Amino acid sequence: MRSLKDRISAEAIVIGTDILKVDHFLNHQVDVDFLQEIGQEFYKHFQDEPITKILTVEASGIAVAVATAMFFHVPVVFAKKSVSLNLDQETYTSEVFSFTRQTSYLMKVSSRYLNRQDHVLIIDDFLANGRAVQGMIDIIHQAGASLAGVGIVIEKGFQEGGQRLREQGIKVVSLAIIDAMDENHIQFRE
Amino acid sequence: MRSLKDRISAEAIVIGTDILKVDHFLNHQVDVDFLQEIGQEFYKHFQDEPITKILTVEASGIAVAVATAMFFHVPVVFAKKSVSLNLDQETYTSEVFSFTRQTSYLMKVSSRYLNRQDHVLIIDDFLANGRAVQGMIDIIHQAGASLAGVGIVIEKGFQEGGQRLREQGIKVVSLAIIDAMDENHIQFRE
Repeated sequence: MRSLKDRISAEAIVIGTDILKVDHFLNHQVDVDFLQEIGQEFYKHFQDEPITKILTVEASGIAVAVATAMFFHVPVVFAKKSVSLNLDQETYTSEVFSFTRQTSYLMKVSSRYLNRQDHVLIIDDFLANGRAVQGMIDIIHQAGASLAGVGIVIEKGFQEGGQRLREQGIKVVSLAIIDAMDENHIQFRE
Repeated sequence: MRSLKDRISAEAIVIGTDILKVDHFLNHQVDVDFLQEIGQEFYKHFQDEPITKILTVEASGIAVAVATAMFFHVPVVFAKKSVSLNLDQETYTSEVFSFTRQTSYLMKVSSRYLNRQDHVLIIDDFLANGRAVQGMIDIIHQAGASLAGVGIVIEKGFQEGGQRLREQGIKVVSLAIIDAMDENHIQFRE
């Protein structure tokens, strides 16, 4: 997605060779008009699939998932990360290691909101090592639902998550794939 | 908002006299078509204000804020709750006690995304004791920005948050105000 790559080149802040900050339009401040373009782009790629739900994980995946779901007119289910007193007792859970936070968390989805009739599109803002997406796939399997594919805004192509998913035969659509980066340059995959 | 009250009456689960679960359409699974109606309703109430930003707090406020911002065509800024390695060093912070989790957290907004030119609409899914909204107001004051008002999907009118905000002269628009509830009945304010 050309406009996305342009915004990343112009606005992203790279720290070292691993951290990419797009807080200006995606992860802390959200440009909702641009988000609609992103949602429409995912719709183009997955509109032929009989999608019934969009699954993401809190927190920064929610904005992208909502903007995408508006084109499909299906509900968003967001997996929860924290143990909340208000969460349903009957849940699918998957343990996920977060490299950003250097700790594991439990990803949870109530069994009320995913079932074997569902055909699920996973949407997330970033794909790096792929642990969060694998956690969501685990939960989809637990529910007996089917996976339509995975839509990612920015994939760190120099980490193994995307490759691992594609090797499993999963349709992964990343709107921008970064093959290398440092503080002076971001190299996108063509 | 009639349609919201109808959905709460039909679908919400009340536990005791204090916990209201609307996980089916707002807090875990999100009905995005309905969310657009909610966003439009907030737009009706605040469209005459020169709003430049919508402020919410992760996680469940994000969906409502994004749907609302699409009508205003302004960015959403979401305050972060957790200490992330990727968060900007220069932040406005406010300490907030969460009754749901029975613990305090630091609410943070990067100083890049709020400034004295901003006129801010706060959007959140729930208002009960009002601590989260007070934290966001604190951050708006730190930034030297002005507050347009507060838009809430569901206010627990039997808790003091809404009254306290209104006593400060703040325009609070709650689309449904619950005056009392138990497992058999939900009583809305007219």
